[in-house]
Amino acid sequence: MQVSRVNLIKIRDGQYSNDYDYVAIEEPLEINVCDEECKTFAIIMRTPGNDLELALGFLYSEGVIDSMEDVIKVEQSVDKINVILRNKNKVESRQTVVNSSCGFCGRALLYTVDILKSETTIKKDVVISLPEKLRSEQEVFNITGGLHAAGLFTPDGELRYVYEDVGRHNAVDKLVGRLLREGQLPASSYVLQVSGRIGYEIVSKAIMAGIPIISGISAPTSYAIRIAHDAGATVIGFVRGKSFNVYTHAERVKI
Amino acid sequence: MQVSRVNLIKIRDGQYSNDYDYVAIEEPLEINVCDEECKTFAIIMRTPGNDLELALGFLYSEGVIDSMEDVIKVEQSVDKINVILRNKNKVESRQTVVNSSCGFCGRALLYTVDILKSETTIKKDVVISLPEKLRSEQEVFNITGGLHAAGLFTPDGELRYVYEDVGRHNAVDKLVGRLLREGQLPASSYVLQVSGRIGYEIVSKAIMAGIPIISGISAPTSYAIRIAHDAGATVIGFVRGKSFNVYTHAERVKI
Repeated sequence: MQVSRVNLIKIRDGQYSNDYDYVAIEEPLEINVCDEECKTFAIIMRTPGNDLELALGFLYSEGVIDSMEDVIKVEQSVDKINVILRNKNKVESRQTVVNSSCGFCGRALLYTVDILKSETTIKKDVVISLPEKLRSEQEVFNITGGLHAAGLFTPDGELRYVYEDVGRHNAVDKLVGRLLREGQLPASSYVLQVSGRIGYEIVSKAIMAGIPIISGISAPTSYAIRIAHDAGATVIGFVRGKSFNVYTHAERVKI
Repeated sequence: MQVSRVNLIKIRDGQYSNDYDYVAIEEPLEINVCDEECKTFAIIMRTPGNDLELALGFLYSEGVIDSMEDVIKVEQSVDKINVILRNKNKVESRQTVVNSSCGFCGRALLYTVDILKSETTIKKDVVISLPEKLRSEQEVFNITGGLHAAGLFTPDGELRYVYEDVGRHNAVDKLVGRLLREGQLPASSYVLQVSGRIGYEIVSKAIMAGIPIISGISAPTSYAIRIAHDAGATVIGFVRGKSFNVYTHAERVKI
């Protein structure tokens, strides 16, 4: 069962209580392709389990293998999988395409100190107002029901920027790109509100932008909680009606 | 407004009707980093609009740029953006991480003929039964509310395999990896049911596995519809209660 028990603070009708919940486990998997030696082909975030199927399906999708005949053997450990190929030529020749899910890998924790030092707090009533404010700005979602949004708010609940995209991480990238252009990084006195789940990608991108509070209407993952905890960022999930859960650094949430 | 009007067949209480709806537009954007010459850094699927912010935010997340001082200028066209950097060294030295979203780029349309020739059809009552069957198998989702699932069904609605993951494309990769291992590709007499939105990644991975029918409880994107149409695959969306929409190749859906 790929779930992890986490402690949290539940806010219900203005009352705090200590509680726990289960979140989906998210961990990195390094996929290496090998002939005489191994080479990292991809690092992907995934729910552990069925790593063999994941690696094979992924390499198939990427055009690296066409059938099991291309695979001599597979070596697995907890966080790494080596796929030994009969013919590695295809790998070298394919176009390099990078994954936005690995932002953390490529960059030091540039603004972690800014987040830890940030004195930004948010009131309960502001937290519960954010989903509706974000949705009212989401013009495409309202028509198609098919888009993710990321909104940057002041701690008082005033919307600064909102971006939409088919990809939830693209929406956050657009927001961070805007802050970058305007010289507003680190954004350590702002709140990020997202329309969907709070995965590793979302939290890592927020942390890299120095944003201390990340809120969403759905569940965070285990890895998202872990990096937010370490970086000093507050993760708020399941903001629905007048209720929400605080998974990390609840000291920033005020009744 | 980044939406596209598409024709579809609506099924309501067993009645077909021609109708239309709006779907979110999804298109590829090529992000190039340049000094004297340009090099493709990534091809990402995105909702057009704010491409400059997206490219800058993405390059920032990937550790390629730290501030606007690293950027000399940016050249934009409809499907391409060139970011001219002051110092390109960082790009060369970073670890290569690939994106599963570009499966189509790396691989020819291997099984399109199998899909076009596939005589697989599905009855209306089977379509509306799939979401509940998938959910009842989703053990992690039921606890955490945070996971995507992909299930492979026979046209009679019998579940063959189900996989879950924090990433919706990972769940499909696991399924395709299983089929690959068992020598069951192309899977041209099966139906793929997914728990969420039907984006480009999902449809391209299904097509590469030769699956002729793709069904989901939420909205497809414009690009997903386009490639499904071209490849001969049936896309069914918004399967809720006794209703659903058929976006492409409705001839495979029987009352």
